[in-house]
Amino acid sequence: MNLILLQDDDFKSDSVVVLTDHRLQHVLTVHRSDIGDSLKVGKVGGMMGTGKVIELTTDQLQLDICLDQPPPPPLPLTLLLALPRPKMLKRVLQSVTSLGVKQIYLINSYRVEKSFWGSPLLQPEKLQEQLLLGLEQARDTILPQVHLKPLFKPFVEDELPQIAAGTNAYVAHPLAASSCPIGRNGPITLAIGPEGGFIPYEVEKLQKQGFTPISLGDRILRVETAVPVLLSRFANG
Amino acid sequence: MNLILLQDDDFKSDSVVVLTDHRLQHVLTVHRSDIGDSLKVGKVGGMMGTGKVIELTTDQLQLDICLDQPPPPPLPLTLLLALPRPKMLKRVLQSVTSLGVKQIYLINSYRVEKSFWGSPLLQPEKLQEQLLLGLEQARDTILPQVHLKPLFKPFVEDELPQIAAGTNAYVAHPLAASSCPIGRNGPITLAIGPEGGFIPYEVEKLQKQGFTPISLGDRILRVETAVPVLLSRFANG
Repeated sequence: MNLILLQDDDFKSDSVVVLTDHRLQHVLTVHRSDIGDSLKVGKVGGMMGTGKVIELTTDQLQLDICLDQPPPPPLPLTLLLALPRPKMLKRVLQSVTSLGVKQIYLINSYRVEKSFWGSPLLQPEKLQEQLLLGLEQARDTILPQVHLKPLFKPFVEDELPQIAAGTNAYVAHPLAASSCPIGRNGPITLAIGPEGGFIPYEVEKLQKQGFTPISLGDRILRVETAVPVLLSRFANG
Repeated sequence: MNLILLQDDDFKSDSVVVLTDHRLQHVLTVHRSDIGDSLKVGKVGGMMGTGKVIELTTDQLQLDICLDQPPPPPLPLTLLLALPRPKMLKRVLQSVTSLGVKQIYLINSYRVEKSFWGSPLLQPEKLQEQLLLGLEQARDTILPQVHLKPLFKPFVEDELPQIAAGTNAYVAHPLAASSCPIGRNGPITLAIGPEGGFIPYEVEKLQKQGFTPISLGDRILRVETAVPVLLSRFANG
């Protein structure tokens, strides 16, 4: 936890928060803070700053809060990700959030196992847990929006044109002729397939919407490796 | 398993292999192959190619092997990684191997927990399991070499100069002034710290050996995310 995330409910007054949950435990056991110490804090959806410890017992932590810094800029990239298996989804959501992606579409593909769509992890509060972990890790306060799109064709035909409008759109595809651009600026829409890749029909559908297939070379990467590798290429360095 | 890795022992003759272990199970249950099918194969430490199924029962798989392709080129990057916790080490080793790194130094740092050095995962055969998984994933045959360096100072002072000679050397450090270069060519030595980063003394020691501190920006990434992000920046696109 590199940032203690605060919610509205935590505020006792404009500048004082009281914490009694896992955040208190973390400060006691990991930070091992004392009265007077400053901790990095941020308000979910808002500003970041410092919290000075004004009371610390095994029951509660009181912080005097000063929120004076904006969160880091978002990554100007909309991610379309074929729904990974639940265990991997957790890690990918955390990692994508920590990298600053704010729009995540979990989409269907022929090679996505149907059972994945029934995972309890896709419940909003479970998704949010993973996103909050990513924000705490990266020191950010702005939650990504996660959109579930279990039907490929209507999503690509009816919704995607508006989502991708005005962006450079790419689909990561092992057989693509072009290699992935490095250090490209401007807004991006990036589609990443499932283990085994999108099927040709799906790549064609995305191409019809203006997506350029790009490859990462001969090596086939797991989704959890490919995602940071791809996002890194599009980050502004 | 995108590549079936073969060892010397598997060869019944120059061109025929017999498999009876987990690779047989994988071909039966995941590939669901038939007689005549071609499978991607590679010899550990050698060439890659195809294996034509000439016998397939629940007891054994016989393949007629043709090895005519070189493995993908390695990433010209030597990685120095502060030893991560065992669970993360597994994933990082797989991911680093799949990205083509061939020289991995697991090094000590003030913020590496001492107990990590006692993990059974550091036994050579356990390490090799993770490396083989990375090769199978990425379709590569050349095992990385993993070097354990549990003493920071003697390693950096006595061994590192030779390891880093003739390379551009960088240490990833959250507080660094320079941002990470993108698309840099030529051999690289890259040092990545533990969760929490190298301590100033360690960064100074590395700087004395010619390492330039580089930052990935304001966001603090988990090691498993930071590693592919950094390696991606140094890959040749």
